Amino acid sequence: MTLVDTDRALQLYQALGTAVEMSGGSCANTMTGVASFGGRAAYIGKVSDDELGRVFGHDMRAVGVQFRPGSPVADTPTGRCIIVVTPDAERTMNTYLGVSSLLCPPDIDLKTVAAGKVLYMEGYLFDRPQAKEAFRHAAAHAHAHGRQVSLTLSDSFCVDRHRDDFRSLVTDEVDILFGNKDELMSLYEVDSFDAAVAAVQRDCHLAVITVGAEGCYIVQREGVLTAPAESVHEVLDTTGAGDLFAAGFLFGYTRDYPLEQCAKLGAIAAAEVISHIGPRPLVELKSLVP
Amino acid sequence: MTLVDTDRALQLYQALGTAVEMSGGSCANTMTGVASFGGRAAYIGKVSDDELGRVFGHDMRAVGVQFRPGSPVADTPTGRCIIVVTPDAERTMNTYLGVSSLLCPPDIDLKTVAAGKVLYMEGYLFDRPQAKEAFRHAAAHAHAHGRQVSLTLSDSFCVDRHRDDFRSLVTDEVDILFGNKDELMSLYEVDSFDAAVAAVQRDCHLAVITVGAEGCYIVQREGVLTAPAESVHEVLDTTGAGDLFAAGFLFGYTRDYPLEQCAKLGAIAAAEVISHIGPRPLVELKSLVP
Repeated sequence: MTLVDTDRALQLYQALGTAVEMSGGSCANTMTGVASFGGRAAYIGKVSDDELGRVFGHDMRAVGVQFRPGSPVADTPTGRCIIVVTPDAERTMNTYLGVSSLLCPPDIDLKTVAAGKVLYMEGYLFDRPQAKEAFRHAAAHAHAHGRQVSLTLSDSFCVDRHRDDFRSLVTDEVDILFGNKDELMSLYEVDSFDAAVAAVQRDCHLAVITVGAEGCYIVQREGVLTAPAESVHEVLDTTGAGDLFAAGFLFGYTRDYPLEQCAKLGAIAAAEVISHIGPRPLVELKSLVP
Repeated sequence: MTLVDTDRALQLYQALGTAVEMSGGSCANTMTGVASFGGRAAYIGKVSDDELGRVFGHDMRAVGVQFRPGSPVADTPTGRCIIVVTPDAERTMNTYLGVSSLLCPPDIDLKTVAAGKVLYMEGYLFDRPQAKEAFRHAAAHAHAHGRQVSLTLSDSFCVDRHRDDFRSLVTDEVDILFGNKDELMSLYEVDSFDAAVAAVQRDCHLAVITVGAEGCYIVQREGVLTAPAESVHEVLDTTGAGDLFAAGFLFGYTRDYPLEQCAKLGAIAAAEVISHIGPRPLVELKSLVP
């Protein structure tokens, strides 16, 4: 994942082949996944009053996610990501964050935060001081109302840029950490996965670490469980795999399912989204639950 | 296929689930298919200077189709189609034609028409008097330059509305007619396919009539050939099947391939496009040719 400015985004678009346009955004994908399982989800994040922003809002409401867009900002367009997918389903993401990066404490709808059993925060946005403050503000409010706080590390480059801030956020505020193996090892600057697991066991109540087709590790203080990935007929585009895994896991978790069952739902959702182009499910996920 | 106005398009969009946005348009799909096989194709048709129009232009250039957008029209947006696909892959199309329906004779780039071995015209646009005139203008110019003229009937409702005009266009100007069984029977107002075949044998040099999974009929004065469809692992969305069939057929035809081989290329392209959501191929079609 590379961050790009508007000029570079335009340049890339001109060089790009035929494109498919879909709403996305890591945390937004996750929330639509929760709703697609039949869960209740809300989303706080900024878009602009432009075509992409309107489509984004439509697609949130269409699956039943409550959308809290925060306060408007003039002259900054809705964020977008130009994703190039290779024939072996790996993707290169070129992200222009646009107005989404301007999230600030007043955007946090506190009633929404207090209402959710789990607050889920997306590492991609943990970049500007105002956004970091918004994260801490939301997390503190969730805890004050007896709610749990989760975070997805999102991207090892993002973790690299803000390691100390991420680490103190994880230590101080995060109950449930989502990420993949690389992101976790980057967070703790360790060379072995075992050392990263030991570190996160000290910091968090629960960590769910995905390892692609190998499935995931469910890390608790009292021990580590593993759960398999679902098999897929053909992997076409891995975009959204982590986001939808988190969706399935969170849906199960908020319903107090056993952790292996939460991971199973995560695996089902991830398998659906990697079997086609695009970062969001094309079928109702609840129809895939055995 | 139903034509809708802007209010109805907005109302449908609000009621719609999560949507995927892709460039489309019957003839435009066909031309991108020809280019995707490695052929040379140009497209004449109107879009506006709005987001959808810009994306449309990008997607034409991206696959190497020369795009001739005609003269601009103020205050009429780019056309769009809201397509709802059922789990059994059938689609309902709600089309707001927008500026595309305002095609008129001055939009026809005569150099482009004269340069193409085959002119391909899309029945969907054969609605307004000005558009009908543009069709006849383009066809006459192609014939004056020793080129062939083809037409796709597109839609049996469209044929119903303009049967007499369609029939005189076919009799006077069309060398190669594309359509499906229903459209052909509607054109000639006959109850049997055999009677429709006999009628089109009198009118056209060549007619290529698709019958879904049963393949197609290649109708010439001297006889009728049949060609099979390609098998598909899972049919997800039949949108674009006829458009891409025409693309493969025309690509082969303009290279003087035997007609069965043209139909084979059509079947390959149609099979690709019905195996995923969206009306245009997601892989280079030339990579699928055995």
